[in-house]
Amino acid sequence: MKQKGTRAERELLHLFWENEWAAMRSAGSGSTSRPSPDLLASKNNETFAIECKSIKSKSQHFNKKEIDELKLFSELFGATAIIGMRFDGLGWHFLDVDNLMPNKNGNYTISLKLAEKSGMKFQELIGKYKQEKL
Amino acid sequence: MKQKGTRAERELLHLFWENEWAAMRSAGSGSTSRPSPDLLASKNNETFAIECKSIKSKSQHFNKKEIDELKLFSELFGATAIIGMRFDGLGWHFLDVDNLMPNKNGNYTISLKLAEKSGMKFQELIGKYKQEKL
Repeated sequence: MKQKGTRAERELLHLFWENEWAAMRSAGSGSTSRPSPDLLASKNNETFAIECKSIKSKSQHFNKKEIDELKLFSELFGATAIIGMRFDGLGWHFLDVDNLMPNKNGNYTISLKLAEKSGMKFQELIGKYKQEKL
Repeated sequence: MKQKGTRAERELLHLFWENEWAAMRSAGSGSTSRPSPDLLASKNNETFAIECKSIKSKSQHFNKKEIDELKLFSELFGATAIIGMRFDGLGWHFLDVDNLMPNKNGNYTISLKLAEKSGMKFQELIGKYKQEKL
């Protein structure tokens, strides 16, 4: 599972560089108690703090704590908090964390259906924010 | 040597967080061919891309390639490129890469003397850039 996650993060890292964005993978929060996204990517004053999940199933659970830490890091760093979902065979979908609705218990569930409805494809992610600035 | 470097990076990571900056350690450029600083730290639209060295001796050599990659990453990411030198028993000194003069062969040498003359202490690093914005 961890190896699959690392592979996905590297794939996304290269996607950013190929599109002339600078991106960096995190050493992982395992080594410290500080919040840390999986990936930071930036260009032209637009910065994304991205938590990545690469899954075979059609739905992924996120704890409130995980999302809260991503929000905290992003706010302080000056980044937009993004969840990057990679569904096997269907590629990447990106969701702006500020648009996510929590479950009744405060946690979050991201389904393929939600990702397809509310998410962005990679080119939209890096293009959308460019367009907003024109 | 690598362990000492990791320890220094973590120390610096915590220094930033204790001063309410968000910081993230890199997974290391060993895993990919993309440039990557050791640490990214940001607050209030000021971002530092930092290459760290923790040394016992009084002087450190940097290859042109290493510095060029730090500059490339920083330019694209929108960060200020910084060398963070930690001299045993003397703490951290930070040098703005744009102010460094290369040797005749294009490489760089940072001595304790240079660091003390041209470098910033941690509080200057995070304060200087705050002051410039007032």
